Amino acid sequence: MSTTEAPSPRPVVVAACQLGPVHLADSRQDVLNRMCKLLDQAARENVKLAVFPELAFTTFFPRYLIEGEDLDQYFDIEDPSKGGIEQSPNIKPLFDHAYSLGIDVYVGYAERSIQEDGSHIDYNSSAYYSAHANKIVGKYRKVHLPGSVEPKTEPGAFQQLEKRYFHPGNLGFPAFRAPGLVPGAVKKSDASASPAENNGKGDPIIGMLICNDRRWAEAWRVYGLQGIEIMCCGYNTTAFQTTASGHMVDMSPDAAEDLVLLHHKLSCQGNSYMNACFSINVAKTGAEDGNPLVGGTIIVHPLGHIIKEAKTKEDELVVASIDLSDCYRLKNTVFAFEKHRRTEHYHPIVEQTGAIEPELL
Amino acid sequence: MSTTEAPSPRPVVVAACQLGPVHLADSRQDVLNRMCKLLDQAARENVKLAVFPELAFTTFFPRYLIEGEDLDQYFDIEDPSKGGIEQSPNIKPLFDHAYSLGIDVYVGYAERSIQEDGSHIDYNSSAYYSAHANKIVGKYRKVHLPGSVEPKTEPGAFQQLEKRYFHPGNLGFPAFRAPGLVPGAVKKSDASASPAENNGKGDPIIGMLICNDRRWAEAWRVYGLQGIEIMCCGYNTTAFQTTASGHMVDMSPDAAEDLVLLHHKLSCQGNSYMNACFSINVAKTGAEDGNPLVGGTIIVHPLGHIIKEAKTKEDELVVASIDLSDCYRLKNTVFAFEKHRRTEHYHPIVEQTGAIEPELL
Repeated sequence: MSTTEAPSPRPVVVAACQLGPVHLADSRQDVLNRMCKLLDQAARENVKLAVFPELAFTTFFPRYLIEGEDLDQYFDIEDPSKGGIEQSPNIKPLFDHAYSLGIDVYVGYAERSIQEDGSHIDYNSSAYYSAHANKIVGKYRKVHLPGSVEPKTEPGAFQQLEKRYFHPGNLGFPAFRAPGLVPGAVKKSDASASPAENNGKGDPIIGMLICNDRRWAEAWRVYGLQGIEIMCCGYNTTAFQTTASGHMVDMSPDAAEDLVLLHHKLSCQGNSYMNACFSINVAKTGAEDGNPLVGGTIIVHPLGHIIKEAKTKEDELVVASIDLSDCYRLKNTVFAFEKHRRTEHYHPIVEQTGAIEPELL
Repeated sequence: MSTTEAPSPRPVVVAACQLGPVHLADSRQDVLNRMCKLLDQAARENVKLAVFPELAFTTFFPRYLIEGEDLDQYFDIEDPSKGGIEQSPNIKPLFDHAYSLGIDVYVGYAERSIQEDGSHIDYNSSAYYSAHANKIVGKYRKVHLPGSVEPKTEPGAFQQLEKRYFHPGNLGFPAFRAPGLVPGAVKKSDASASPAENNGKGDPIIGMLICNDRRWAEAWRVYGLQGIEIMCCGYNTTAFQTTASGHMVDMSPDAAEDLVLLHHKLSCQGNSYMNACFSINVAKTGAEDGNPLVGGTIIVHPLGHIIKEAKTKEDELVVASIDLSDCYRLKNTVFAFEKHRRTEHYHPIVEQTGAIEPELL
């Protein structure tokens, strides 16, 4: 692709499967039924990839302080000795239904990862299920956990306890290919000997992020450096901003929600543009037991504009016909990374975590 | 600052000094007069920082193939043995005028840097002149040069020869403080012993980018990791997109310009938000000898929204009253880098330049 300008079209129909609120009292089965209904609708519209939100199967439980065994119900167990998360009785029906419809699925869930010694580590995770391969072909664990380990102590503080319930992801940002998602992909066995000649011709290159990750340009860039063509990102985003002590920033609810949506769109559109990839950004939205989550589910073009946007704060299928060859207009020009990036000046990005200010004068 | 939520106000009035077209036949003196007139207007509006465009003093000459001595007129000489760029007779009058008005200036220029052996290296540079210190306190050389070394050969191709005329900047992304830009700054001599306690109280922390740099999240992040509060960025941006061979992408002029402006705004707003800083983004705009440049001069808030935008494609002063304490709402929460960044997963950003795709299946 790096030498030609008109890559062959690689069309595919994709969908964001926005979910309305999931309340504490809603059963897993209810939620699964809603998700499968969206898949049925997707199949009728010829969708081949369906993207669901972060922690899709339950309410966004990190807003509550939950202790002991009460917490277990929110997690699905990945025990290498018994098979992966796709064996979870809570998740398997979704993948089985997707298989029957021939639709790939991205979905977020709370993962309890059983270790060799029997202990467990919990992650905020997503899986990419390939209907073509009938298995999970991509896995991601959220790297940028917001919130705090300890509950905020001031009266009336809003809690965001992701740092309490989850460990930061330990898989990095691993792009992968989705077999058979577009027809006619060049395979390893019949590829040109020159790797660059295969760019933009193989099975689609997918990346995954979860919620807060989308605000971190580093995450997008590490995927960009793997040539991703479609970013999938589910989220649960509170419709107001809080201060460092957990209080709502003092502004009208409408203005607050507008600001949260601005930040969401700047993150998704800006980073899709800067990495020349599509992105499918999917909300769990509406008020979960009175706690408002923004909507703003959007499918974004590699040129940065929004192709399609949700109209509601309920379960809603947002469908777009996209052409992966559109990624190469910018990948071959403005963002031809090998021509323009200057890594010798980027070292602080990996060498320090917090800001180090210039000395006072 | 990291422990409090309500930093003291640090108000300052800033301006983007947008320039209309500079044609090949326009004299340096004409352009200087236009710039000084904008400074006069700025002084009447109590402006303390005035930001001019990239390569402000001449037409955007990298659109032409120019050879030999004809090229010299576009450059200003920095010869360490004879003083810095502020001694250039082409530039000194601007700084002298700024001094008389008490206004700091960011300005872009073509730098011919004389080496010890008498040879020279050319850069696309900017300087930050402090009226308080009456000297240049910050210097930047553009890192992300677009375009090509050799002219495009296809008939009718548009040229962008920055890679021919300039070396990539060798200074990295050095933030610095602007002495006296806000009154009452904490100085080193009276600072708290705990460095974190001084954050958000000292002289303003400034970063500089030039044009194409603003599309590269790495550049913003390296500045973000130095706690910058104000990003200054001048640009000359063509009002249409070209393909890899230098031909205009086939779309209506209005649609093309809208797309270029979308990319400009996503870059400036998205990266200001993701680094919680103000940004002052300033165009040279209008048609230079028939070559259209976009406008879109904008001053952006750390929350990502546009505070003020140019209305014309001519010389225009765009003024905003800003409060640097606004940076800390996000610096202390969403983008509290030391709490949330996970550098162990960012290594590809410095370890590879081009994209390395996952293997074909």
